[in-house]
Amino acid sequence: MHDVENRPWILIITHGQFGKELLNSCEMVLGKMENVYCFSLLVGMPPEQLIENVAAVMDSAPAHSIILTDIYAGTPSNVAAVFAKKKQCPVICGLNLPMLIEAEMSRAETGGDEWAKRIIDAGNESIKNITRIINER
Amino acid sequence: MHDVENRPWILIITHGQFGKELLNSCEMVLGKMENVYCFSLLVGMPPEQLIENVAAVMDSAPAHSIILTDIYAGTPSNVAAVFAKKKQCPVICGLNLPMLIEAEMSRAETGGDEWAKRIIDAGNESIKNITRIINER
Repeated sequence: MHDVENRPWILIITHGQFGKELLNSCEMVLGKMENVYCFSLLVGMPPEQLIENVAAVMDSAPAHSIILTDIYAGTPSNVAAVFAKKKQCPVICGLNLPMLIEAEMSRAETGGDEWAKRIIDAGNESIKNITRIINER
Repeated sequence: MHDVENRPWILIITHGQFGKELLNSCEMVLGKMENVYCFSLLVGMPPEQLIENVAAVMDSAPAHSIILTDIYAGTPSNVAAVFAKKKQCPVICGLNLPMLIEAEMSRAETGGDEWAKRIIDAGNESIKNITRIINER
């Protein structure tokens, strides 16, 4: 659906640096990822500063770009909600590694709600009790 | 259920350092957490080394301790599966911030399968499309 130049971007907003390290971990699995931008809420940082940091990237992001955040109703997701309202971009919370992998794998073919759905489905399918799986074999 | 001395431990095994940073982010929300141990699969590290690192902690972990990992069937979860078999501890994959928060919040009262279920439920409930929630208001 998208050629390389206008593939949607992935923005990640989290408490602290875990979004950045999640991206590093994801790149251990998939290799280098382009146009993924991480924003950290640091201790003592006012939300307005985080909004400003995100806006500096979001204002030039292609259509169908997406924001991934760590937890519903925390400051990072409240900041993301500002852009959900303003830009109508999908904002998904509960980010884990399988969701970021799915976001990268499907971003060339999808965008908007279909992309969001694939990421959410990947997240829900990824949460398992491995011990139970082993015991049922 | 558990007094402080024999509260179960939380072990986190991930690709790269994201488990460590996830713990830091979680502590931004909950404050300092005790007896949480993070293990990183680094580039070029043999799985045997990771197994050895985990075993050094797991061998003295209290009953009902738990392992949280990033993605099913990756090296970290395969390493965790070794301990699932050997110790019958719950191993949960798909770790995100709300799951780690739930693991900490409920570890004093629960253990084993009930604890695992609460963490998995917290994970599944945490994955949402915030833009859709805003638009439905």
